[in-house]
Amino acid sequence: VAKLIGVDWGTSNLRAFRYDADGRVLETRRAACGMNAVKDRDFEAALSGIIADWLADAPTRLVLSGMVGAREGWREAPYTPCPADLASLCALMVPVPAKLAEAWIVPGLVAEGAAGARGVMRGEETQIFGAIDQHQAPLVIAPGTHSKWARIAAEAVAEIATFMTGEVFALMKTHSIIARLIDGEAHDEGAFQLGLERARADASLLRVLFTARTEGLFGAVAPQAMCSYLSGLLIGSEVSAGLARNDAAAPILLIASAELAALYNTALEAANAQSVIVMDGETAAARGLWRLATAKGFT
Amino acid sequence: VAKLIGVDWGTSNLRAFRYDADGRVLETRRAACGMNAVKDRDFEAALSGIIADWLADAPTRLVLSGMVGAREGWREAPYTPCPADLASLCALMVPVPAKLAEAWIVPGLVAEGAAGARGVMRGEETQIFGAIDQHQAPLVIAPGTHSKWARIAAEAVAEIATFMTGEVFALMKTHSIIARLIDGEAHDEGAFQLGLERARADASLLRVLFTARTEGLFGAVAPQAMCSYLSGLLIGSEVSAGLARNDAAAPILLIASAELAALYNTALEAANAQSVIVMDGETAAARGLWRLATAKGFT
Repeated sequence: VAKLIGVDWGTSNLRAFRYDADGRVLETRRAACGMNAVKDRDFEAALSGIIADWLADAPTRLVLSGMVGAREGWREAPYTPCPADLASLCALMVPVPAKLAEAWIVPGLVAEGAAGARGVMRGEETQIFGAIDQHQAPLVIAPGTHSKWARIAAEAVAEIATFMTGEVFALMKTHSIIARLIDGEAHDEGAFQLGLERARADASLLRVLFTARTEGLFGAVAPQAMCSYLSGLLIGSEVSAGLARNDAAAPILLIASAELAALYNTALEAANAQSVIVMDGETAAARGLWRLATAKGFT
Repeated sequence: VAKLIGVDWGTSNLRAFRYDADGRVLETRRAACGMNAVKDRDFEAALSGIIADWLADAPTRLVLSGMVGAREGWREAPYTPCPADLASLCALMVPVPAKLAEAWIVPGLVAEGAAGARGVMRGEETQIFGAIDQHQAPLVIAPGTHSKWARIAAEAVAEIATFMTGEVFALMKTHSIIARLIDGEAHDEGAFQLGLERARADASLLRVLFTARTEGLFGAVAPQAMCSYLSGLLIGSEVSAGLARNDAAAPILLIASAELAALYNTALEAANAQSVIVMDGETAAARGLWRLATAKGFT
């Protein structure tokens, strides 16, 4: 059997995992070489620059997930319709004509949503299948620029919702009228909690965002605390809307970095979520790539 | 009695009205000379450059409203607590030490809101008192960068809500991931209506905004129609949340330019508002400034 290397290749970052024969990660490499940073769209050269030595001594297979499979990526992989399990994803994996090794790209997911609105993901599906191998939960949240909420049933992703939380946060703190009311990004727990509370009390984000302006104007939220207040408004808005469509009493699996996990944990608790399990995104991706490779018969 | 001149002086524009003794507008002047464009903060020189000839032949009084009374304006005028009627505003008018004429600035309004969130306005209060002189309505909407919804009771402003609709629209179409899915800003009625419908079906703006990305990705909304779809999502989100706290069967007074009035009219109708009366913002401001001057004993 060829050795396996997994690659989680997103818009901003790349993470490569070298596995032993039992799926343990022997080595991880990280590079700020996301889709947007690949020179001349030469993905093979970019990847080779990071893991060439891993490919030297024996036949190797690569499995890649994330935006590397988007239209603007290395090679477009389809969106698998939900409900989708490991087998559905394997069936739509796309081979990439690469010289450096046999390479396969994991497809994304698409789900029909309320009022005909579709949900999509690329990369998070791999993290999800890595995470639910370790922990049972009917709801997985992968917060970020575009936060993903996935409902899990029968070991398949049944529904996807996306919240533009991280992107709207970045736009507001950089370009909006609130930007000038912000001094620094140090965490302020009181302001963050006040933001969560305001968002719970009013489901209208357009109305709730303006409280940042008035609270700044009247000195009720200090410039040093404003960034946390804004973060509380946005994460609170996401969590309230998300939990309203899910069972808050069931376990929730949170795939996030330590920093985001702390914020979402607080927001979920404040919204009466009963049990939150946290898993690091890198660990989840590494496990998911191994599971997908195994289901495909590569290990 | 001194002649009266009214000035509606906002962040981006200035509009000056010269009245006859009965309050009819004899002449209107418009200048792109908002707060942000006043050279060296010399407000008197800026104003004089626009209406000096109006002041030449007889004693004149000036009444000014809008951001000219903000902290960063000519002279800070307070926020009048709601409920506030014409007399409350008159009591807190602030004289400005000006050489060119006797000048007074109309105060803003502040209202306590749900969950301790304050509502404020500056300039819209003057338009509101101009508009409700002509039309009875328990709800006035002044859409824009920061859309104002005012509940009127006993000829006073009782409550204020603000929606950041116009500002979030501008941020999304300029800086977000959706920006690259937009080709032009021509109005597309079908896409606008679809946006309204999506926003009515889902109260979570963070979730609803992402549909612009998926609809673009799957070609369901063409780049030429995307700007209207986004506009529909945002105006629809505002109107749904606003009407949920008001009586949709009662008349609604809409203070807006023809272009915005058409969009909000459509959105309000789609959300089952029964009767919408439209009044142009300039007309409303001119009438409001005259009413305030009269209540103050200036006419």
